[in-house]
Amino acid sequence: MNPPRRAVVLLSGGLDSATALACARAEGWICHTLTVDYGQRHAHELAAARRVATALGAAEHRVIRIDLAAFGGSSLVGDGEVPKDGVGAGGRSIPSTYVPARNTVFLALALAWAEALGADAIFLGVNAVDYSGYPDCRPEYLDAFRRLSELATRRGVEGRPVEIRAPLLTLSKAEIIRTGLRLGVDYGLTSSCYDPDPGGAPCGACDSCRLRRAGFEQAGAADPLLGRDEARD
Amino acid sequence: MNPPRRAVVLLSGGLDSATALACARAEGWICHTLTVDYGQRHAHELAAARRVATALGAAEHRVIRIDLAAFGGSSLVGDGEVPKDGVGAGGRSIPSTYVPARNTVFLALALAWAEALGADAIFLGVNAVDYSGYPDCRPEYLDAFRRLSELATRRGVEGRPVEIRAPLLTLSKAEIIRTGLRLGVDYGLTSSCYDPDPGGAPCGACDSCRLRRAGFEQAGAADPLLGRDEARD
Repeated sequence: MNPPRRAVVLLSGGLDSATALACARAEGWICHTLTVDYGQRHAHELAAARRVATALGAAEHRVIRIDLAAFGGSSLVGDGEVPKDGVGAGGRSIPSTYVPARNTVFLALALAWAEALGADAIFLGVNAVDYSGYPDCRPEYLDAFRRLSELATRRGVEGRPVEIRAPLLTLSKAEIIRTGLRLGVDYGLTSSCYDPDPGGAPCGACDSCRLRRAGFEQAGAADPLLGRDEARD
Repeated sequence: MNPPRRAVVLLSGGLDSATALACARAEGWICHTLTVDYGQRHAHELAAARRVATALGAAEHRVIRIDLAAFGGSSLVGDGEVPKDGVGAGGRSIPSTYVPARNTVFLALALAWAEALGADAIFLGVNAVDYSGYPDCRPEYLDAFRRLSELATRRGVEGRPVEIRAPLLTLSKAEIIRTGLRLGVDYGLTSSCYDPDPGGAPCGACDSCRLRRAGFEQAGAADPLLGRDEARD
């Protein structure tokens, strides 16, 4: 039997990345979770990521701070209002919550850490449903990053590239939730809302809240976050 | 005549990126220079980048801080000694000064800023001679990043990907220096050494100092940095 291998898992504090972490743990990976603090509106997500990492048995959790907000260009980092008129409303092909090149920055940082750690894989929670118009959540994007990682790193040159794993890529939101529930994820620890109130309660109206609600409905499960009024942090 | 277009130029404070900036300026680009402060041993490089940006007429210069040192894995960010036994000595195929996934992180950040700015290109100073064993300075690596950038961004999806420009890629160090001198680069403002003394004077022995010295010799030019004993900052 092979010894367990190490993986870097990108963890946002949301539903998808928590499920991706659970998938990696279920496969036996020693997980080093990485949260990128990129100038989000709320520290709430960071706290959720920490809770999820602990609950799912990450070996180590790190937060790396990088001020993407200084570049501007997204309603998620302070430029303009978070849209609440429904996913894809108004003919927007890419929503204003898109952060320029976000997944490229996140994957680059995960790759740097993976190479320094000697980790064999990177897990991330992107999927086609949560895509909701973001170009850097598509399968062809991940294939391009895979190719880049083969060429970018010492271990890639040596013929042992870091695997880029997106276990949720082809799952619907309902399938993701069913997968996570089966693997013991406590979704009450996660935070999905783009615009929560100061206590962390979800707005219920942003794209992310809408996708989450529909996912729990389709999975036939109750979202443990709903009906909680108390602050979570 | 078309209006001038905007470019993000990755600027390290070294000889190569200063020359890449001069190339971009000579083509008429409005240049937004980006220095990534990734936990280098010396603030000296950051000061050199600022001087070069000003001298070469950058429209804007930004420094973004990111703590790659926290990941470990390179002698350039505090792990171990900088090697001074000659380029490629000891059969090392990739030197210990390699920072894991560094150019991937830098290009990802440049891409994020380019997209937020509406810039049409990213310039960087990688080249085959200064390659000195780093996997992320190879032409095939840049091609892979180009492909990634087409898929990663809103403007790529819209058919107007950000150009990835490496004007020095196929030049020798001597050709880079001749190009820069022709374009008016003051190499006395730059800093190449991996391990300068506290006043900023180059060690003369690290790979970067060796490549720089050989380049000036082959270009038949004097390095304005040599023979200066005073602190530069």
